[in-house]
Amino acid sequence: MESPPVSADVDALLADLRADLGPDAVLDGAAAGARHHVDWSGKHACPPRAVVRPRSTAEVAAVLRRCHAVGQPVVVQGGMTGLSGGATPLPSELALSLERITGVESVDADGGTLRALAGTPLAVVQAAAEDAGLAFPLDLASRGSCTIGGNVATNAGGNRVLRYGTTRELVLGVEAVLADGTVVSSLYPMLKNNAGYDVKQLFVGTEGTLGVVTRVELRLHPLPAERVTAFAGVADFDALVRLLGAARRGTAGRLSAFEAMWPDYYDYAVRHAAGGARALARPHGAYALLECEAAETADRERFESLLGELMEAGIVEDAVVARNLDEAARLWRPREAAGELLGGLQPSIAYDVSMPLVRLPAYLDDVRRAFRAAQGDRPLFAFGHLGDGNLHLVASLASAADANQVDRIVYDALRGFGSVTAEHGVGTLKRAWLGHSRTAEEIGLMRRLKAALDPRGILNPGRVL
Amino acid sequence: MESPPVSADVDALLADLRADLGPDAVLDGAAAGARHHVDWSGKHACPPRAVVRPRSTAEVAAVLRRCHAVGQPVVVQGGMTGLSGGATPLPSELALSLERITGVESVDADGGTLRALAGTPLAVVQAAAEDAGLAFPLDLASRGSCTIGGNVATNAGGNRVLRYGTTRELVLGVEAVLADGTVVSSLYPMLKNNAGYDVKQLFVGTEGTLGVVTRVELRLHPLPAERVTAFAGVADFDALVRLLGAARRGTAGRLSAFEAMWPDYYDYAVRHAAGGARALARPHGAYALLECEAAETADRERFESLLGELMEAGIVEDAVVARNLDEAARLWRPREAAGELLGGLQPSIAYDVSMPLVRLPAYLDDVRRAFRAAQGDRPLFAFGHLGDGNLHLVASLASAADANQVDRIVYDALRGFGSVTAEHGVGTLKRAWLGHSRTAEEIGLMRRLKAALDPRGILNPGRVL
Repeated sequence: MESPPVSADVDALLADLRADLGPDAVLDGAAAGARHHVDWSGKHACPPRAVVRPRSTAEVAAVLRRCHAVGQPVVVQGGMTGLSGGATPLPSELALSLERITGVESVDADGGTLRALAGTPLAVVQAAAEDAGLAFPLDLASRGSCTIGGNVATNAGGNRVLRYGTTRELVLGVEAVLADGTVVSSLYPMLKNNAGYDVKQLFVGTEGTLGVVTRVELRLHPLPAERVTAFAGVADFDALVRLLGAARRGTAGRLSAFEAMWPDYYDYAVRHAAGGARALARPHGAYALLECEAAETADRERFESLLGELMEAGIVEDAVVARNLDEAARLWRPREAAGELLGGLQPSIAYDVSMPLVRLPAYLDDVRRAFRAAQGDRPLFAFGHLGDGNLHLVASLASAADANQVDRIVYDALRGFGSVTAEHGVGTLKRAWLGHSRTAEEIGLMRRLKAALDPRGILNPGRVL
Repeated sequence: MESPPVSADVDALLADLRADLGPDAVLDGAAAGARHHVDWSGKHACPPRAVVRPRSTAEVAAVLRRCHAVGQPVVVQGGMTGLSGGATPLPSELALSLERITGVESVDADGGTLRALAGTPLAVVQAAAEDAGLAFPLDLASRGSCTIGGNVATNAGGNRVLRYGTTRELVLGVEAVLADGTVVSSLYPMLKNNAGYDVKQLFVGTEGTLGVVTRVELRLHPLPAERVTAFAGVADFDALVRLLGAARRGTAGRLSAFEAMWPDYYDYAVRHAAGGARALARPHGAYALLECEAAETADRERFESLLGELMEAGIVEDAVVARNLDEAARLWRPREAAGELLGGLQPSIAYDVSMPLVRLPAYLDDVRRAFRAAQGDRPLFAFGHLGDGNLHLVASLASAADANQVDRIVYDALRGFGSVTAEHGVGTLKRAWLGHSRTAEEIGLMRRLKAALDPRGILNPGRVL
């Protein structure tokens, strides 16, 4: 890890920030609580030099102007739910927390747009959309803690990418503060706008390295009358792919989630997070959780009969459809528990790779074989957003020191055709592997952008690049 | 218009390019045909100094390396169907035509992706997707002439943005050549990839000012079993908005087009492009063309009964549903003819503004009033992609010299809440109005990007910025 530039006089800077923002806006020592030390990866916890908590975009600009002037590195913090170390401080960084810049500012139900401050939790955004009779379809298991600003900065994916795309497709506008304190307002409610470069793209998925997102304008979608959840057991990967294809075609694009689980993961999750209650009578070679959005009862009936036809055709071995929200939550439970199960598996390491679907079974075989050779019979769980070609792997390690060995197994096997991170982002933990998924020319272009927007390298240094 | 930098010795440069690419790759004088002089706007036709026609990405790189070295400005040309002057040469520019870099390279039917060279016409891409049982849903009236590289460079919109988004949402990867000849390959078939900055965004919608797109990887969608086209007459704008909302909700997201036409445009288009054949018996206050994608017969039936319910509720006054592709084409004809009708209206000028739907009726009233005061009873036609808040206006002018007066009327009325270009892009023709829709900080950021990627300003100079 490269060491960040050291500020000439941090104490003087903190005194200036207290004068600018008020004393309660700057926490240091023990006041800068442990939740600011590490993201949900749990890796490399480190206290920041201080936590700065601006209350407005103007205050974020004031903080960055001062940090830029003295070359003080800053780590941007939202809900701390990232899994790539992006929000975990490096030594001597100031943590810039968006926790006090929070709230849904407006909802335009006719236009289908919503404006929110960056520190607003995703679940609050979802609820505000639903109160207006609409949906903000981005959905992740961390919805109660992750913030919409963090979702934008990391281009979060989640369960409904299949139908609605990643966060990038759901963001109409962004307000961001550049490293030098310039506020760039690119907040538009228009669905289409080709008036010059789409500058908001600079702040979507760049993990806070090019600017700090302070406000977002989001695109809402119609709220489906019902979300029908089904759970299916199939024989193998080929059957999963055939089920996915049939479900997409048969629902005319209304399939909103298709989550695959392999038996080792499903069995473990049922045992540890669902009280042992299996959704189907017998074990199967692979499992799929499907969600279909229904406009009316006929859509549910058609989805149910589609599953019936797929059972008769032998593609599905067994399936169950939730009759109400409680049953749906029970079907989702083993999949949703992935994050918390990770905690019980330490030392362990989580991956989120992606590749064309056709490559996936051979890739998984390769990784399992190499992992077994290196780590013996320890668990290597596989599950993920199959409709997006996005596979999550969780490896239980004999020792935390084995992480690099397993990284190499997982990433070397996809070099040339896959991505080392489909949705979690690079942060610090995957930085060394970026070259597996991006060419030298692409990385050169990223560096050009970083140099153009943050010439002193104060914003999230060492993340991504 | 700022004059572009003048190359030291263009004749020597052309001799070098002939040596590099072969003599038939460089056309000058009369050989550089009139189709290279102006885009479909028809404004400010100008012959380029020469037309250069590379056959490969490597040849594009060779051309740009030489132009970069001597500061020779280049205008990038695809199908020449733009309406903003972006591909129209400025004096002494070389035209870099992608016309020989053409063809669909591969289709992955299982993965739902397609790779094509930049000069491939959109209609060829659509056909290749359909041959594989899938759809590339981008669709514009110029589909036979516009190229996929131009679609990407301008982030084309068109008829199905409502369901599938603009070109940006349909592009998985791009290969582009930077001003200095560096080839950046960012061609990935993955649906999700957060491995570092999404560098392809630099080349989508930046109108060839940051790099020349040479190859694209596209996302395909399931091919609907049927596209059901309907045409409805309603009383007024409010009824259009209610029809749009009801159709979106009632089709559970399967509504793929919603084109509004005001009576002056519709009547003119029927008379001049459809042999006078009106689709409905009586005249109405406004018209809507709807397209709904159907997975099976039940979807068509439900769409038809939805329209019936809306007639009973008084929202729709009259409607007709096409029974076959011929009837659908006849319903589309008045809308599709917009481009060719423009030719018969000279002098005239076309606009494509966008704004939140709720602002649209007052905006249209304001513009009509000011236009009448300035231009009397001349036609001002209104139609557009209402589902996207995107309004097309075509103004017939007393004199071509009135263009600036009418620009001011159309653009001043949306300052602060609308975009001067929803989909056509800025080019040269809307450059003076960019500040109506973008803040000084946004334009500053665009300039930073331009300086970082094209420091000598040789790529499409004077376009956008």
